Amino acid sequence: MLKIYAIGGYSQIGKNMTAVQYNDEIIILDCGFWMEKIMSYEGEENAASLPVESLYKYEIVPDDRKFFEEHGKQVKAIFSTHAHLDHCAAIPALAGKYKCPVIATPFTIEVIKRLASERKEKMPRLIKMKEGNFFEVSKNVKVEFIHVTHSTIQTVIIAVHTPDGIIVYANDWRFDENPIIEKKTNYARLKKISKEGVLALITDSTRVDDESKTFSEATVRSMFLDILPGVNNKKNLLIVTTFASHIERIRTILDMAKKLNRKPIILGTSMSNYINAAEKIGVTNFSKEAQIVRGEKNINKIMRKINKNRGGYLIICTGNQGEPNAVLTRIARNEFDLNLMPKDAVIFSSRTIPSPINIAQRADLERKLRNKGVRIITDVHVSGHAGREDQREMLEILKPKHYIPTHGGMVKLASAVDLAGEEGYELGKTSHILQDGQSIVLIK
Amino acid sequence: MLKIYAIGGYSQIGKNMTAVQYNDEIIILDCGFWMEKIMSYEGEENAASLPVESLYKYEIVPDDRKFFEEHGKQVKAIFSTHAHLDHCAAIPALAGKYKCPVIATPFTIEVIKRLASERKEKMPRLIKMKEGNFFEVSKNVKVEFIHVTHSTIQTVIIAVHTPDGIIVYANDWRFDENPIIEKKTNYARLKKISKEGVLALITDSTRVDDESKTFSEATVRSMFLDILPGVNNKKNLLIVTTFASHIERIRTILDMAKKLNRKPIILGTSMSNYINAAEKIGVTNFSKEAQIVRGEKNINKIMRKINKNRGGYLIICTGNQGEPNAVLTRIARNEFDLNLMPKDAVIFSSRTIPSPINIAQRADLERKLRNKGVRIITDVHVSGHAGREDQREMLEILKPKHYIPTHGGMVKLASAVDLAGEEGYELGKTSHILQDGQSIVLIK
Amino acid sequence: MLKIYAIGGYSQIGKNMTAVQYNDEIIILDCGFWMEKIMSYEGEENAASLPVESLYKYEIVPDDRKFFEEHGKQVKAIFSTHAHLDHCAAIPALAGKYKCPVIATPFTIEVIKRLASERKEKMPRLIKMKEGNFFEVSKNVKVEFIHVTHSTIQTVIIAVHTPDGIIVYANDWRFDENPIIEKKTNYARLKKISKEGVLALITDSTRVDDESKTFSEATVRSMFLDILPGVNNKKNLLIVTTFASHIERIRTILDMAKKLNRKPIILGTSMSNYINAAEKIGVTNFSKEAQIVRGEKNINKIMRKINKNRGGYLIICTGNQGEPNAVLTRIARNEFDLNLMPKDAVIFSSRTIPSPINIAQRADLERKLRNKGVRIITDVHVSGHAGREDQREMLEILKPKHYIPTHGGMVKLASAVDLAGEEGYELGKTSHILQDGQSIVLIK
Amino acid sequence: MLKIYAIGGYSQIGKNMTAVQYNDEIIILDCGFWMEKIMSYEGEENAASLPVESLYKYEIVPDDRKFFEEHGKQVKAIFSTHAHLDHCAAIPALAGKYKCPVIATPFTIEVIKRLASERKEKMPRLIKMKEGNFFEVSKNVKVEFIHVTHSTIQTVIIAVHTPDGIIVYANDWRFDENPIIEKKTNYARLKKISKEGVLALITDSTRVDDESKTFSEATVRSMFLDILPGVNNKKNLLIVTTFASHIERIRTILDMAKKLNRKPIILGTSMSNYINAAEKIGVTNFSKEAQIVRGEKNINKIMRKINKNRGGYLIICTGNQGEPNAVLTRIARNEFDLNLMPKDAVIFSSRTIPSPINIAQRADLERKLRNKGVRIITDVHVSGHAGREDQREMLEILKPKHYIPTHGGMVKLASAVDLAGEEGYELGKTSHILQDGQSIVLIK
Repeated sequence: MLKIYAIGGYSQIGKNMTAVQYNDEIIILDCGFWMEKIMSYEGEENAASLPVESLYKYEIVPDDRKFFEEHGKQVKAIFSTHAHLDHCAAIPALAGKYKCPVIATPFTIEVIKRLASERKEKMPRLIKMKEGNFFEVSKNVKVEFIHVTHSTIQTVIIAVHTPDGIIVYANDWRFDENPIIEKKTNYARLKKISKEGVLALITDSTRVDDESKTFSEATVRSMFLDILPGVNNKKNLLIVTTFASHIERIRTILDMAKKLNRKPIILGTSMSNYINAAEKIGVTNFSKEAQIVRGEKNINKIMRKINKNRGGYLIICTGNQGEPNAVLTRIARNEFDLNLMPKDAVIFSSRTIPSPINIAQRADLERKLRNKGVRIITDVHVSGHAGREDQREMLEILKPKHYIPTHGGMVKLASAVDLAGEEGYELGKTSHILQDGQSIVLIK
Repeated sequence: MLKIYAIGGYSQIGKNMTAVQYNDEIIILDCGFWMEKIMSYEGEENAASLPVESLYKYEIVPDDRKFFEEHGKQVKAIFSTHAHLDHCAAIPALAGKYKCPVIATPFTIEVIKRLASERKEKMPRLIKMKEGNFFEVSKNVKVEFIHVTHSTIQTVIIAVHTPDGIIVYANDWRFDENPIIEKKTNYARLKKISKEGVLALITDSTRVDDESKTFSEATVRSMFLDILPGVNNKKNLLIVTTFASHIERIRTILDMAKKLNRKPIILGTSMSNYINAAEKIGVTNFSKEAQIVRGEKNINKIMRKINKNRGGYLIICTGNQGEPNAVLTRIARNEFDLNLMPKDAVIFSSRTIPSPINIAQRADLERKLRNKGVRIITDVHVSGHAGREDQREMLEILKPKHYIPTHGGMVKLASAVDLAGEEGYELGKTSHILQDGQSIVLIK
Repeated sequence: MLKIYAIGGYSQIGKNMTAVQYNDEIIILDCGFWMEKIMSYEGEENAASLPVESLYKYEIVPDDRKFFEEHGKQVKAIFSTHAHLDHCAAIPALAGKYKCPVIATPFTIEVIKRLASERKEKMPRLIKMKEGNFFEVSKNVKVEFIHVTHSTIQTVIIAVHTPDGIIVYANDWRFDENPIIEKKTNYARLKKISKEGVLALITDSTRVDDESKTFSEATVRSMFLDILPGVNNKKNLLIVTTFASHIERIRTILDMAKKLNRKPIILGTSMSNYINAAEKIGVTNFSKEAQIVRGEKNINKIMRKINKNRGGYLIICTGNQGEPNAVLTRIARNEFDLNLMPKDAVIFSSRTIPSPINIAQRADLERKLRNKGVRIITDVHVSGHAGREDQREMLEILKPKHYIPTHGGMVKLASAVDLAGEEGYELGKTSHILQDGQSIVLIK
Repeated sequence: MLKIYAIGGYSQIGKNMTAVQYNDEIIILDCGFWMEKIMSYEGEENAASLPVESLYKYEIVPDDRKFFEEHGKQVKAIFSTHAHLDHCAAIPALAGKYKCPVIATPFTIEVIKRLASERKEKMPRLIKMKEGNFFEVSKNVKVEFIHVTHSTIQTVIIAVHTPDGIIVYANDWRFDENPIIEKKTNYARLKKISKEGVLALITDSTRVDDESKTFSEATVRSMFLDILPGVNNKKNLLIVTTFASHIERIRTILDMAKKLNRKPIILGTSMSNYINAAEKIGVTNFSKEAQIVRGEKNINKIMRKINKNRGGYLIICTGNQGEPNAVLTRIARNEFDLNLMPKDAVIFSSRTIPSPINIAQRADLERKLRNKGVRIITDVHVSGHAGREDQREMLEILKPKHYIPTHGGMVKLASAVDLAGEEGYELGKTSHILQDGQSIVLIK
C-alpha cells in the first residue's frame, strides 16, 4: 500500500511537508517555514527561536501534531530537497521527536546546521548525501537524489523507489538549460525512471499559471550586460541586491564586478551565512574574489572606505523585499556611514514577492531611495520556479500515473489540475487536489 | 526664431509628424500612420489605398491641413527617422503637396518606395542618406543623421543644426548595448553635440512609465536558447512569429534554426517585403539561408512539403497580434495544407500591443491553437522603446535646454514630464506638454 | 442510491446541465448554451439554428452524448430553473430525444417555446409549473420549485425530494432583500427543508470570489436617481441599455422615464421577445406604458419621430456588450435615421462580461460614442449572482451534508471549495469538485 | 491683475494650499496636511505636534516658505473649504505668521479649534461664516461661500469676486442628488455666477479618471438595507467602520441601528471629536441616540457590557484603513475585553485609500478578522469626490474661461486636462497644469 500525507504546503505557499508511506514504513519529505507568517510576526524575539508551541500557533511551521501522534513511530527518515527556508527551516524545531536521521545534500545540511545552532536545538543525526546517490531506508524503500536546477544550489528531486512503483517528489525546481555553476537537470535519469514506472509525481505548482517557460540564469547575465553600461560611472555607488541563498546569482554579480573593475563587497549576516555554507562544501570560493563583511562595526568600517572611493566598489546585499533590518533598507535609512547621492544606482536582481506586507515595505524602500535621487533598476531576474510549459514537459518526461500538485492555495492547485487535464489526467482519478491534513492511497 | 509644430503623435501613440521652423524655413520630421485606426477600419478596400480625404476622416494620417495651408510653402524638406509605418507610411499620401525632397536612410527609403508603389502615388524626390551624414537644407539649417538602436534597422536620431542651437529629434529609439546586426548607438556623437549646445530634445515617451532599462536583442537570443530545447523534437512543427520589420530578430531566429538543424522558411508578403528592402541595400542576405515564400499557391506548396517532414523546418511568419489575415492566424484556421497537431509549438517573439482589438484577436488565436493541443510560448521579446532609465540617460547625455516628449496620450506625456522634473526641468519653462495642433517658440 | 452527473457547466461558465439519479430513475436539471461560443462562432447562419452535430462540435451545447447512450432511457423529466439562455436554450435541440416532459415556470416555458419556434424543432411536452408547487416524477422522486431572486423573473431553486434526502439545485440566484417586481426569496421554505435534511447543495459559483454581498435592484434604482438629473436636459437624447431578459431592470427604467417625463421606447427583437413572454403570463404589462418597436422599418419610423423631439423620449435597448447587431451598436454606426450629438447620454445598466471578445466590442462601441461627443455612464448595475457572503448564508441556511459548486472553470470551483472549507466542509469528503463528464455517488 | 499661486496639492494628493492675488491683495485658500506622510512618519511623538520645521521637512504641510517671504505681508485672509485634514489641518501651524483672520464654516472652525488646542498653538482670529454669505476682504475682493455636497458637512465652494471676474475654487466636492442631512448643492447660485462671468475654475481632480458619475449617500443607505438582513442575527456582534468626519454616513448607520433594534455605540477619540464639533454647531444631536465613548477605561467598560449581550448593540468606529491605533484594529488584536467570534460581522463603509501602507495595514486587519471567523463586507461606500461626468457638468454649468485642476500627481492632472479638451479647452491657453511652487497670471 502506498499512501501520501499532505502535512504542509498544500493549502498555502510555504511550510512544505509531505510524508510517503509504504506498508508500515514512512518517510518525511521537506519540513519548512511559512515565510509570510514570520514576516508578519511582530513579537520582540526572533521568530525562529520561538518555542515550538508558538511556532505552531503562529502557523510558522507545518502542523504535524496529529500526524506525529498517529504515525510518528513509523517514520524512518526525513529528507529535504534544498536549502530554502520553506523546505528545511522547521527541521531543527520538529525533526527531533521523530528519532530518525535527516538526509540532504551537503549544502542543505550546512544550512540546517546553522539554523539549528541559532535555535540551540539538539539535532537528530544529519547525513550528507550527494545527488545521484541512494539512501536505503529499508529493504523495500530506497530514496534517490536526482539533480535539478533551481534558484539555490544542490537542489534535488527525490525519487522514492518502492515495490509498488516510484514516487517522484519535485519541490521546487525549474529547467535551466544554461546554468551558471551547476550542470543541467539530470534528464537522462528522469527518462530512465519514467521507463521503470512512476506511480506519482508530487510537484511545485507556484508558477503553473504562468503561461510560458521559465528563463535561465544566463538570461539574467545578459540583462546585467545590458544594464551596467548605463548606470556605471567613475564616481557613483553601485548596489545590487538579491536573495541571500541564490549562489548562482551572486556568481553572476561577481563576474559583473570584475567586468566593471569594481571590487565586490558582500554585506550582511544572511548572505555571509549562505556563502560560508557553499564554501564549506567546496562548491565556491567567493571569499577569494570578494570581501565578505558582517557585524555592525565591520560593516561601518568598510562603508567609510567605500565612501571615499565610491566608484571603486560594487555592494552586494540583501533587502530586495524591503525587509526592515536588511542592509539595503538600513543604508536607505542612513543608518551607516555611507550617504546615498543622486546618480547612485540600486539594481534589484529579484522580484517582489506579492504579499501585501512585502509590497508595502518594498514601496517604502523605493520611495526612500528616489527621495535621494538614486536610480533604480528592477526585475533583473528570472524565477526559480517552473512555468506552465516546464510543468508540461516534466509530465511528458515522467509520465506518472498520478499527479499531485503542491504549493497551494486552491487557485494554484486548480490551475495545475487544469494543465494536467490538458495532458489527459482526470481530477479525482489520476490528478488529485490535497489540502493540508489530508491523505490519499494511490492505486496502481 | 526657433519654433516646433506638433502636428501628429502628441495626442496619441501613432501618426507621428513634427515640424521645425528656423526663421522662414521649415522642415518636417516623420509622417506616419495611426496603426490602431487601420486595424479598426473595416471597409472593403485596403485602408492604405484610401483617398486622402478618407485617410484624414478615419484619422489614419496626421492632420496637416491647417499647417499646410499656413506654412506649406515654407517647407524645404521632409525627413523620416525609420521604416516603421507610424513614422513613414503617410509620406506617399501627404508628402507630394509639399513639393520638396524626402530624405531617409536607404532601408527606410526602400520601404517608402514600396508603400508608394502599392498606393500608386507619384512621389516627390526620394533621397537616401546614410547615418553620420548631413543634409544642407539651407545656409542656416543642416540636418544630421545619428545612428541609434531600435527594433528595425537603419534608425536614426535627427539633429537639426541652426544658428540658435541644435534640435534633437529622437523618435523612436532604445539603447541596446549588445545589438545583433548593427553597431551600438553613436554615443560619442551625442556627447559631442551636447557640448555644442542642444536647445531642445524631442523624444519618444512610449515606455517612459516603465521603471527600468529596456533590455537588449542579446537577451532575446538568450531566451531562445533557454526555450528551444524544451519545445523542439524530431517530429513536431516549430513556428516563430514576430514583427515583419524586425530584421535583427529575424537574424536571431535564423541562427536558432541553424542550431536546431531545421530549415528556416519565411512566409508571407509583409515579411518578404521588409527582407527584400534589407537585401536591396546590402545589409542582409537572408534569402541565401532561408526560403522566403509569398503568394497563396507557393505557400501551400511549401506547406505540403513541410507536412511530410515536420521536424525538418522552422516556420517564421507574422500573426503575433492575431491579425486576421496574417499567415499564423490562417494556419490556425486550417486555411493551408498543413495541420497543427499536439506538441507542435508556436513561439511568440513579440508582445501583444495593448489595444482592445489586438487583445481580443490574439486571445482568439491562442484559443484556436490550444484547442489543437499546440504548445504556446509567449513574450520571447524585448521592447524597441526606451524605458525610464534610458530616457534619463539620454537627458543626462544631451543636457538639452528644453524637453518635449512626444508619443502621447496625456498620461504618457505627464509621466515624461515627471521624469524630467526629477532631472531638474520645470513644466511650462523647460519641459513642455504639446498636443496635436499646438506649437511652441523656444527661448534660448 | 443517489448519484449526480455533471454534464455541463462544471468546466466553464455556460452550457449548464446536471442529472440526478435515484436508483433507476433520473431527472435532468437545466440544459443551456455556452454563450461565449455563440459569440465567437462566425458562420454565415444563425448559431442557434445549426444542426445538432454542429452545436456539439462548436461546444455550444452540453455534450450529453455519452450520458444519453448509457442513461437516456432512465430519464423521466427535464427541469429548467430560469429563462437565461445558458440554462434553457439547448432544450429545443437536445430535449426531444429523451422522450419525457420539460417542466419550468410559465415565463421560462414561454421563452423555451419561442426558442423552439425559431429552431423549427418539434418539442417534447412543455409543462408550466409555478413556484411553490411539486412535480411527482415517481413514487420516490418529487421535484419542488422554490422561489429565488435573480436577474430574470420566475427563477426557482429546484429541490429534489427522495427517500435518501433532498438534493437542492440552486443555479443561478442572488439574495435580493429589496426586489422590484417579485417577492424576496422564500427563506421560510429553505429553512423548512433544511430541517428535513439536505443531502447535497449544487450551486452557482460565478461570483464566489467576490468578497461581499450582492446588492439589490433597489440599489440600482437609487443609482439611477443619482445619475439622471445630471444627464437629462430638454433637448438631449437619453438611451439606457441593459440585458433583454432583465424584466425588473426594465421596470426600473420605465419608472425613471415617467419621473423625467420622457416617453419610453423599447427597441429590438430580443427585448420585445422577453417582454412578450412576461406579458403573456400576466406578470407585467409594459406595452401599456411603453412603445415596443421591432423590425427595421418600424424602428426607423420611430427614430425619425424621436429625432424631431429628442428630449421627449427615453430609448431602452440592447447593445450593452457592444454586440455588432444590437440596436445601440447600430445607432452608434449611424445605421438608423437618428444622429447622436454632443450631450446626448448613454447609460449602461450592465457590466461588461469579461471575455476578450466582449471587451473589444464594448471598447469599440464606447469609442464610437465618444467620437460623437456622447456622455457615457457605465456600471449602473448590480449582479444577478450571489457574492461570497450570500453563498455563505445559503450554506448556513441549508446546512447540506455535501456541497457541489457548479459554474467553473477550476479557479471558480476552487474558490468555492475554499469558502466551504471556512464553513467546515472538507474537499473530497463533503465538498466536491466535479468536471464535465464526471459523476459522484453521494453518501448519506 | 489676477494671479494664482499653486502652493500645495498640485504635485500630490494632499497638503492643499492655493493663493489668489488681485493687484496688491492676496487671499489663501485651504492649508492642509499630506496624510500619507503622517502615516509613514514613525517618530515617537505625534506627527501633528511636531515643530514647524519638522512638518516642512517631512512634507506634512505645504511648503509656503518662499511664498511667505515674498508675499506674506500682502495676505489679507485665509479661507478653508471644509473640515478634512488635507484642507485645514496645517492652519494651526502655518496661519499665525500671516497675521490675518481665518474664515470657514462653523463646523470647520470647530475642527480647526480642536486641532489648535492639541497643538497648543496660539491661533489667529477664527471667523465662522455660513454658506450663502460674503466676506469683504477689501473694496475689490469679496469672498462668497456656496454650499456643495461632499463627504463631510458644511463644505463650501469658494467664489472670489474681483473687478476682473470671479475665481471659483471647488476643492473638494461631489454632486449628490439625494443627500441625507444637508441640502443639494446650490446649483442656482452656480448658474447665477456663471452668468456674471467666471474667469477661472480651480477644482479637485482626484477622481477625474473615473468614467462615471459619483453616486449618492442614498445609494449607500440602499446598500445597507441589502446587506443587514444577511449579517444580523440575535447573538452576533455587528461592527460598522467608517471615516470619523463623515457625519452623513454616521447618520445612516444610526438609522440602520434603529431598524435592527440594536443600540448604537460610537467608539474612539476621533469619531467623538467630529461628532462633538457637529453638535456644538447644532447640526446633529447624535449623543441623544447613541452612546459615544472615548478613553481606554470607558471603552473597556462598555466592551464588557456589549460582550454580555452581543446582539443588542451596533458598534461604530474607525479603523477602516487598518490604522494600527484605531479601535477596530485594536479589537482585532484582542486589546479590549471583547472577543470576536465566528458569525460576528464587520462592515467596511469605506474604500481602502490605495497607498501601499494602507493596503498592507488593511490586508493585515482583514486577515486577523478572518482568522477569527468574522464575516467581512467591504465597499459599502460611495466616494466623496466628483467623477468624470460630474466634472464635466461643473464645467458646463460654470463655463469658466480658464480651467485649473488641482489634486495631482501629473497623471491625474493630465486626465483632467484631457476632459477639459473634450469640452473645448486648450492646454496652455485655457487649461493649465500647475505644479507646487508655480504661479500663473490669468488673462481675461
